[in-house]
Amino acid sequence: MDGAGETIAAMMADIGARARAASVALAGATAERKHAALIGAAEAIRANEGAILDANAEDMVAAEGRGLSGAMLDRLKLDAGRIRAMAEGLRAVAEQPDPVGRVLAEWDVPSGLHITRVATPIGVIGVIYESRPNVTADAGALCLKAGNAVILRGGSESFHSSGAIHACLVTGLEQAGLPADAIQRVPTRDRAAVAEMLRMSGTIDVIVPRGGKGLVGLVQAEARVPVFAHLEGICHVYVDADADPAKARAVVLNAKTRRTGICGAAECLLVHRAVAADLGQRIVDDLIAAGVEVRAEGLNGSRPAAPEDFGHEFLDMIIAAKVVDDVDAAIAHIRRHGSGHTEAILTENPATAERFFAGLDSAILMHNASTQFADGGEFGMGAEIGIATGKLHARGPVGAEQLTSFKYLVRGDGTLRP
Amino acid sequence: MDGAGETIAAMMADIGARARAASVALAGATAERKHAALIGAAEAIRANEGAILDANAEDMVAAEGRGLSGAMLDRLKLDAGRIRAMAEGLRAVAEQPDPVGRVLAEWDVPSGLHITRVATPIGVIGVIYESRPNVTADAGALCLKAGNAVILRGGSESFHSSGAIHACLVTGLEQAGLPADAIQRVPTRDRAAVAEMLRMSGTIDVIVPRGGKGLVGLVQAEARVPVFAHLEGICHVYVDADADPAKARAVVLNAKTRRTGICGAAECLLVHRAVAADLGQRIVDDLIAAGVEVRAEGLNGSRPAAPEDFGHEFLDMIIAAKVVDDVDAAIAHIRRHGSGHTEAILTENPATAERFFAGLDSAILMHNASTQFADGGEFGMGAEIGIATGKLHARGPVGAEQLTSFKYLVRGDGTLRP
Repeated sequence: MDGAGETIAAMMADIGARARAASVALAGATAERKHAALIGAAEAIRANEGAILDANAEDMVAAEGRGLSGAMLDRLKLDAGRIRAMAEGLRAVAEQPDPVGRVLAEWDVPSGLHITRVATPIGVIGVIYESRPNVTADAGALCLKAGNAVILRGGSESFHSSGAIHACLVTGLEQAGLPADAIQRVPTRDRAAVAEMLRMSGTIDVIVPRGGKGLVGLVQAEARVPVFAHLEGICHVYVDADADPAKARAVVLNAKTRRTGICGAAECLLVHRAVAADLGQRIVDDLIAAGVEVRAEGLNGSRPAAPEDFGHEFLDMIIAAKVVDDVDAAIAHIRRHGSGHTEAILTENPATAERFFAGLDSAILMHNASTQFADGGEFGMGAEIGIATGKLHARGPVGAEQLTSFKYLVRGDGTLRP
Repeated sequence: MDGAGETIAAMMADIGARARAASVALAGATAERKHAALIGAAEAIRANEGAILDANAEDMVAAEGRGLSGAMLDRLKLDAGRIRAMAEGLRAVAEQPDPVGRVLAEWDVPSGLHITRVATPIGVIGVIYESRPNVTADAGALCLKAGNAVILRGGSESFHSSGAIHACLVTGLEQAGLPADAIQRVPTRDRAAVAEMLRMSGTIDVIVPRGGKGLVGLVQAEARVPVFAHLEGICHVYVDADADPAKARAVVLNAKTRRTGICGAAECLLVHRAVAADLGQRIVDDLIAAGVEVRAEGLNGSRPAAPEDFGHEFLDMIIAAKVVDDVDAAIAHIRRHGSGHTEAILTENPATAERFFAGLDSAILMHNASTQFADGGEFGMGAEIGIATGKLHARGPVGAEQLTSFKYLVRGDGTLRP
């Protein structure tokens, strides 16, 4: 290891030790104190709007200089509206019920013991993300709400913006009398810090990667720390023979076009053969009229679909489309090509909807609703740290509740095991 | 890779593919069918007692020939009573409520959507264990109950015994019309199969190691598949100043001596300074009279404690003992030396018990009860696949319920996201 590597390793070890110490203090923090810290942080963000905008301007100049794409610049950019939304997000998390200490289950056993299962913080969470600076606020807030210490490692493009937002979170912590180390930010752009985080088992309990396929793939391949998997959102919408035409047309359009760059955007349309020629074609025409490129099989699209268009995450004004024989064929297609994120069925037949729900194992299944609802805020979680596509611990939108663990409290009266 | 390695890899890939296919069928299996398979397996175990005993005799002869220790031979040995207990264990799991399809939460959101969170199987579980043949039955049954396909890899010493038990599980599956591949057993003693399992991400969703420190350490170090951590059980019993002497004496003796080889056995006694000379010393004398070697600090034990006796898992008639200043000192000691498994406090003061519960983050915390209750059966789970000491997904005794995941079912009426 070279000198710089050693320095990074020592820095990360120090950050880790401080996070562990803070996590012990946080585990005993009252709901009121955590609430106060989040409200304080929201107020600090509003009060420091100017400083945050200045820091963001610095990032934007550097990003433009490096020739980042328009979409990336848009993700990076902050304005008064986005800063206000960030502060509102902190308030929304603050007003959620405190997830720590909830009694998850309670029962008596024949030996006379009374057993309670209560929610506890996980401990220390590492969040590795890309350019959106608001993740700093959302991830910091959710981890704090769940009583966890967090180590944030944002993208290098948003370095200054994240720093300014992080300072506001620390202000909130300090005002509430909570340790500033509860929300730490890796103060370097050196990528060696990421590699270090991925190896900090024993210090970091779980890593949450939030970003594109490249980042998530790297984290999953290299991590020696457990990871909440956040894979692609290859979301499908299936229009059944019993779909209501008006609902189906509106939902497909919303699912594809409301925002194309989010993981809940529809990437593939499946249409029951019986309604392909009329309703199916009308939906395709709607999409094309809205500016979407439809790569179709069995429908008149913008161009014919190639095999690789199925199972592809476009994140753009492009959708694959295909005619299928029935709901079972739709299920089979989705099982083969989906990423286990979100799928929707449009049908007025409740039995068909139940078959779709039972036959698929994606994190989120929708009936007569847009896949764009795959979002922690829309699920009532205040915010989300991401949408997990793995099946262990966290799944779907990850809010504060899923950032907790639990322990068993067992009460006896000198009870002996025979 | 040599020829044998290639053969093992191909064999494991085939087992994995069959497990994945079986898991899809199992996910849709009714509670009745899974129940029938478990009852059928229990009956097959009773009906094939002779064949199981013969297979076990073969394992025992080989084990004696290889000079295994008495404790290991005892773990390996089956008799009519142990076979009956195994069948009863299968019946107990069968009679548990079905964990799949449970509604875990349900709510409405302002957009008009109705959201339900329901329990689902995880998928494919790999279980890697050592000499106890009954794990074959317990692990197979719990995974099946939760709708998961399982790949069992038992210790080489119990190869024939596990094979005979596995055959009974398959009989139960077939009688109930479920795929035989739902419970597969790795049909080789070659250790390359374990290495292969640990790399089967994409096929195996989670690995559960069940065995000693060596096995669990190997699995945690090598696995590319998520692991439910099952570390040591370095269990502490703290006798508070307000302990009831009779309860304290009885519980400590039970916690240490009922069975010394299980992970819930007490390994360290902590005594409040105020009661050290009388109650504390009496407990130490009880332990010595019962044949326990007490390695003590501040008490008259069998011999003085060395620093390495604290935080040590003896799994034998040995206990470390120490005087501490108060409950906070006990908490600090346990945080430093414990393994996050199970700790008990003996006190008649409820506030002190609450402080102990709040200050520690072990999987199980007991008040006036023996640490030997750390067991899935005693928790009412029918059986357990092990006691998890990690904090993600599963924690404490792992029964069928914790072998499930969940998905969100979202119902709308043509609902669009604004």
